[in-house]
Amino acid sequence: MVETNGAFPAPELSVDQWFNSKEGLSLEKLRGRPVLIHAFQMLCPGCVSHGIPQTQKARAIFEKTDLQVIGLHTVFEHHEAMTPVALGAFLHEYQIKFPVGLDKPTANDGIPATMAAYSMRGTPTTLLIDRSGNLVANLFGQIEDIVLGSLIQSLLASPVVKPGSDGIEKTVNSNERRNEDGCKIPAA
Amino acid sequence: MVETNGAFPAPELSVDQWFNSKEGLSLEKLRGRPVLIHAFQMLCPGCVSHGIPQTQKARAIFEKTDLQVIGLHTVFEHHEAMTPVALGAFLHEYQIKFPVGLDKPTANDGIPATMAAYSMRGTPTTLLIDRSGNLVANLFGQIEDIVLGSLIQSLLASPVVKPGSDGIEKTVNSNERRNEDGCKIPAA
Amino acid sequence: MVETNGAFPAPELSVDQWFNSKEGLSLEKLRGRPVLIHAFQMLCPGCVSHGIPQTQKARAIFEKTDLQVIGLHTVFEHHEAMTPVALGAFLHEYQIKFPVGLDKPTANDGIPATMAAYSMRGTPTTLLIDRSGNLVANLFGQIEDIVLGSLIQSLLASPVVKPGSDGIEKTVNSNERRNEDGCKIPAA
Amino acid sequence: MVETNGAFPAPELSVDQWFNSKEGLSLEKLRGRPVLIHAFQMLCPGCVSHGIPQTQKARAIFEKTDLQVIGLHTVFEHHEAMTPVALGAFLHEYQIKFPVGLDKPTANDGIPATMAAYSMRGTPTTLLIDRSGNLVANLFGQIEDIVLGSLIQSLLASPVVKPGSDGIEKTVNSNERRNEDGCKIPAA
Repeated sequence: MVETNGAFPAPELSVDQWFNSKEGLSLEKLRGRPVLIHAFQMLCPGCVSHGIPQTQKARAIFEKTDLQVIGLHTVFEHHEAMTPVALGAFLHEYQIKFPVGLDKPTANDGIPATMAAYSMRGTPTTLLIDRSGNLVANLFGQIEDIVLGSLIQSLLASPVVKPGSDGIEKTVNSNERRNEDGCKIPAA
Repeated sequence: MVETNGAFPAPELSVDQWFNSKEGLSLEKLRGRPVLIHAFQMLCPGCVSHGIPQTQKARAIFEKTDLQVIGLHTVFEHHEAMTPVALGAFLHEYQIKFPVGLDKPTANDGIPATMAAYSMRGTPTTLLIDRSGNLVANLFGQIEDIVLGSLIQSLLASPVVKPGSDGIEKTVNSNERRNEDGCKIPAA
Repeated sequence: MVETNGAFPAPELSVDQWFNSKEGLSLEKLRGRPVLIHAFQMLCPGCVSHGIPQTQKARAIFEKTDLQVIGLHTVFEHHEAMTPVALGAFLHEYQIKFPVGLDKPTANDGIPATMAAYSMRGTPTTLLIDRSGNLVANLFGQIEDIVLGSLIQSLLASPVVKPGSDGIEKTVNSNERRNEDGCKIPAA
Repeated sequence: MVETNGAFPAPELSVDQWFNSKEGLSLEKLRGRPVLIHAFQMLCPGCVSHGIPQTQKARAIFEKTDLQVIGLHTVFEHHEAMTPVALGAFLHEYQIKFPVGLDKPTANDGIPATMAAYSMRGTPTTLLIDRSGNLVANLFGQIEDIVLGSLIQSLLASPVVKPGSDGIEKTVNSNERRNEDGCKIPAA
C-alpha cells in the first residue's frame, strides 16, 4: 500500500481551456465530491499506454458514484507539438470523453501553473482529492489498478471534513513512488 | 460497480488438507480480520492466467494490512488429474505462497463441500468476508483489478459488526457477474 | 496465411522530408534489398500500440540482414495536429530510430501522394517490397507477428528477379485483411 | 536472428502414448514435410502462458501449408503430478487439438528419452525439422513470434535435401538462447 503523511487543501486548477465540458470545472464547484485527476501529456508513452486507459476504466467502473474524473494536459516539453488543436485531435482519436483541461502555460521553465502548484514530478501523475477538497494522493508514474481502486474507494467512503481539521484524510508521499515509465521533468 | 443485496454469515470452510500453513485456518479463528478467498482449480485456464496472479498481486499490495488471503482448491471436474500431489507441484511451480486449502470432496456430483455451501457457480470464484464474518462478495469469473481493490478497501475500512445486525455489509449478487473466462459447473 | 495474387513494381516514395536519415531514401536506391515500410499516423491508436512497436521489434530482430525498415507518416486526417514538428517530438518520445519520411501532401482530399499511389486504405499499413522492387504485400490493420516474420523471411530468401517477369513474387490481396483496429480513410 | 552452426538428422521420437492422434506419428513417416515440435510440461508456467499459445497460433496461421505441428510432453520433474490422465485433462481444458506425444520415461535421472536424445535443456523447447529430416533449430525458452514465423517460413520454402549433404539446412545453437522464463533441468 501507499504511505501517507498528512493532508492539505488541494490547490485550485489553473486551466485556460476545457475539452468535453462546456462550462468548465473547478475544485471549488466540486467540493463535496471526490475527484480523480489524471495529469498527462499526449506524447508521453506511459500516459498513452497505461495512465489514460486506466483512467477511462476507472471512470466506467465508478460511473454510478459521484466520483468526478478529470484529465489535465500538463505540457512541460515539446510545447510546439502538443498544441490545443493537437490535443483536440488526440482526444478524438483515443475516444476520451471525460473533461480535459489545458493546464495554464507560464514563463516558469515551461512548467504549467497547476503542475507547479502541485509540485508534480512529471507525467503521468494521478491526483486524488477528497470530498472536503483535501489532496489525498499525488502519485507520479504508473499505479497498479488494485491500488487505484483501493484509493478511490477510500475517497468514496470518506465523509466531508473541513480542510485543516484533524480529519481522516491522508496524503500519499509521492517521493516514495518513483516509476521510470513516466516522463520526468528534467532537473534544473 | 457491483450491485449488492444484503449480507449473511459466511459458511465455515470444509478443508481436508492445507498447503503453506502448518496449523490450518478457519473463518472462526480469523474473525475480526477481513478475508479474501480465491477458489480455483489448477487446470482452469482462467484461474491460471488471471485469478491466481491477481490474488498474488493483491496479497503483495495489502501485505501490511490485516487482510488474510486464502486459496481454496475446489475441484469439481477431472478429480483424477487434480490430486493433492498434483496441487503441491502446481503451487511449487507457480510460486504460490499463501495458504491453500483442499476443499473437502463429497459424493454430491463431485462438487466439494465448501463450494456447495457457497453455491459457487464455477472457478475462479472470489469471496470477500468482512471482519464480522459476513460474506460481502461471491463473484464468479474474472474481476477487474480496480474493482477488487475497491472491494478490499471497503473490507479494510469497515468496523466489526455482529452478523445479522443492520450493518454496513453488502453482498454482491453473483448472478449479475457471468464471465465465460471461467470454468462453470455444468447444469445437472 | 495471406492470400496472394500476382506482383507489380512498387511505386516510388513521394517524400517531402526525412527524419533519422540525412540523405533520404528511395526505392530506386534500395533496389537489391528487401524493404519493410510501416505507414502510420502519430495519432492513430492502432499504430502507436501495435504497428510501431512491431516494426521496431522486426528491425531489431533482422538488424544483421540487409532488410531496410522505413517509416512513412501518411497523414490523411487532423493535418493541423500531425505537423512535422509534432512528428519530430513523437519520434523522440517513442525512441524511433529508423528513417521516417513525410508522405507528400496533395490537394487530393487530404490523402498524401504515396498513400494514394499504393491505394492504402488507412493506417497502419504494412508494405513489403522485394529485392527486385516488386510490391509483395500491402496490408491494412494489425498483422500477427508470426505472419510478419514469415513474410520478411520470404523476402530475405528471394533472389532478385526482374519486375514483370514470371518470378516468385507474390502480392497480398489487402482486401482480405480488414481490421478495425486501424484508422480507415472514410469513404468519399 | 538466431545463429546457426550446421545441420544433422533429427533423432526419432520415443513416444509411449499419443493424444489427439489415433495412429501416432513418427519423423520417418513425416519425411518430406516440415515439422514444428513444442516440448512442454503441463505445469511449466512459461509453457502454459507463452509456448503453448504460440504453438496454437502458429498451427492456425500455417494450417493450409504442409507444416506438421506436434506437442511433446517431456516430463523431467514432478512425475507423480504430470501423469497421462492429468495431461488428458490439461489438453481438454486448454483446448489443445494438435497431436501430443508422451515422451518415453527412462531411469536416467527422470529425463525422458526424446528429451535426452535432443539434449534439451528444459521446457519449453521448440524444435524445427526440415523436409529432409534434419534438425534446423533446438531452442530453449521463449521465442519471439516474429522469429518463429521466420524460421517456419524457411522450412516451408526449403527443398528436400538428403541429410548429411552440403545443403541449406542450418542448426540453431541453442546455447545462445537462454531464457529464464523456462523450466531448466537442474545441473546434475
